[in-house]
Amino acid sequence: MESHAEMSPTRVAAVKWEGGRVSTACEDLAAEEPLEVRVRGRAITVTMRTPGVAGGVDADGMSVEDAELAAGFLLTEGVIRSRRDVERIVPCGRNEMGNVLDVRLAPLVHVDFERLTRHVFAASSCGLCGKASIAQVRTCHAMVETEVRVRAEALMGMVGAMRERQGAFDRTGGLHAAGLFRADGTMIVVREDIGRHNAVDKVIGHALLGGIGLTDALLVVSGRASFEIVQKAAAARVGVVAAVSAPSSLAVEFAREMGQTLVGFLRPAELRMNVYTHERRVVMG
Amino acid sequence: MESHAEMSPTRVAAVKWEGGRVSTACEDLAAEEPLEVRVRGRAITVTMRTPGVAGGVDADGMSVEDAELAAGFLLTEGVIRSRRDVERIVPCGRNEMGNVLDVRLAPLVHVDFERLTRHVFAASSCGLCGKASIAQVRTCHAMVETEVRVRAEALMGMVGAMRERQGAFDRTGGLHAAGLFRADGTMIVVREDIGRHNAVDKVIGHALLGGIGLTDALLVVSGRASFEIVQKAAAARVGVVAAVSAPSSLAVEFAREMGQTLVGFLRPAELRMNVYTHERRVVMG
Repeated sequence: MESHAEMSPTRVAAVKWEGGRVSTACEDLAAEEPLEVRVRGRAITVTMRTPGVAGGVDADGMSVEDAELAAGFLLTEGVIRSRRDVERIVPCGRNEMGNVLDVRLAPLVHVDFERLTRHVFAASSCGLCGKASIAQVRTCHAMVETEVRVRAEALMGMVGAMRERQGAFDRTGGLHAAGLFRADGTMIVVREDIGRHNAVDKVIGHALLGGIGLTDALLVVSGRASFEIVQKAAAARVGVVAAVSAPSSLAVEFAREMGQTLVGFLRPAELRMNVYTHERRVVMG
Repeated sequence: MESHAEMSPTRVAAVKWEGGRVSTACEDLAAEEPLEVRVRGRAITVTMRTPGVAGGVDADGMSVEDAELAAGFLLTEGVIRSRRDVERIVPCGRNEMGNVLDVRLAPLVHVDFERLTRHVFAASSCGLCGKASIAQVRTCHAMVETEVRVRAEALMGMVGAMRERQGAFDRTGGLHAAGLFRADGTMIVVREDIGRHNAVDKVIGHALLGGIGLTDALLVVSGRASFEIVQKAAAARVGVVAAVSAPSSLAVEFAREMGQTLVGFLRPAELRMNVYTHERRVVMG
C-alpha cells in the first residue's frame, strides 16, 4: 500500500478491518488541495479546498468553482461589495500545482492589506476581536432586513434537494455542502467542499459573479452553523440560514443582532427543526 | 424570543417544529468565542474556539485550556519546538471579553512574523503552498519514525472512551473531540472544541506544557481527518492518527510521505475501520 503514489489522489487503497476480517479495497476520498488567492499581486489567503468540477473551466482556463470561491471569499470578508468590483479572475502560473489565482479588481477598490494580514478575517470585519463586543457588530454590518418567508415544509425539502446534488459525498463521506434556494424551494446553486466555509463562499461567489440577487434567498448548510457561516450570509445579505446540525452560541447571538433567521437541526427524516432567532420568517402553520 | 439577550450564551430559547407541532424550549449550544494569541506583543492569530472549562484556571487567572490551545498552536505551526521555548502564558487585559492571551517565549526563540502573517500557517510550514509539491513536504518535516503498535480492538475502545468524556457534545451536538492515548488504550487527555483543529491543538498543548512525551502516543479525532489534522500530529511527532469519519486525499498523501499510520471510519458500533497508510502499526490479527 505504501507504494501507491501513482494512484489518483482521490482514489486510494485501504486495508479494511471488519469484525476481525482483513481485506484490501479501493476507496474514494474527498479531494483537498491548497488554493492561494492573490489580489494586486499579493497573496491574501491560502485555503485548503476541494477543487470543483461542477462548474467546469471558463475561457481563460480558470476553474469556475475556484473563481466562485475567491469571489465569495472577497465579498464575505468585506474586500469587495458588488460584481462591478471584480474585473477578471485568472489562473496564475507561478505554482506548479496551478492552485494560485489572481483576482483583478477595479482600480478604485480599496484593499486594506494590513487588516487582511491580521489573520482575523471574519472576526475583524465585524469588530468582534478588535473591539471585543458582540454589541458592536452592528457598527460594521447593516441589519439584514429582508422579509422573505418560507414554509417549514419547503425548508425540509431543501435538505433533500441539496443531498441529491452531493455526488462526491456519496462516494467519500467527507464533504460539506451549501445551497442557495428561493423561498418556494427553487434551487439557485449547490456546492461541495471539504471546508464548510469554502462551500458557503462558493455559492455566494456563484451568485455574485452571475449577478443573482440574494435578498429573498435562503442559505442551507449540511453541517453545523458556526459564527463564520452566519457572518458570511450576513455579508451577502441573506436573511435565512438553515443548518442540518447544531448552531454555535456565537452564531445565534450574531444572527439575533443582525436580524437573520437561524434554523438548526433541520432534519427532514425526523420531521423536525429548531428556529433560534427571528422565527417570523418561518411559516409553521 | 428576540429579547433573550440576558440568557447565558450557551443556553437559548428555540422554537421547535416537530411534525407540524410548534413548541418553545431551552437549548444548550456549543460555546464559540474568539481567542487572540499574542507573541512578543503582536497578534499572530485569532481563532474561534470553545472556551474550555475542563482544565480550570491556573494561578495567573489563565484558562488552562486556552493556554493549551495557544501552546499547541505554536508547536504545530512550527513557532516553538519544546516546552523550554515557553516561559509563561498569561491573560492579556486589553480585550473586554478577556479573550486575549500573551505567550512569553524564551529570548532566543526566533519568530518569523512575516511567515505567520501570510495566512498560510500549516500549509506554508511544510512548503505545500509556496513550493507547490507534496514531495517537498519532507524537506521541512522529518519523518515520524515511531514504531508504536496498537491492536485494532484497542483503537475501537478509544472512540468509546473519548465519547464518554464528551460532556458538552451530549448537550449540544456541536463539538469536535480529540484525544491522545497510549497504545494499550490508556487515555492521556481528551479535549472538545467547536473547531476540530483547536481540539487537536489543545491536546497537543496539554502534552507539551505537561512535559508528556508523545513518541508512542496515538491521536484520535471524532470527525474527519483533513490535511491540517495529520500535519499537526506530525509536528507533535505522533505516528498514528485515527478518525471516526473520512480522511481527505491530502491527509492520506501527507501521512504516507511522513510515515504516519492513518486510520479512517473508525466505527466501534459497526466493528470496522479503514487503514490508509503504514498499516504495520495496527495489529489486526
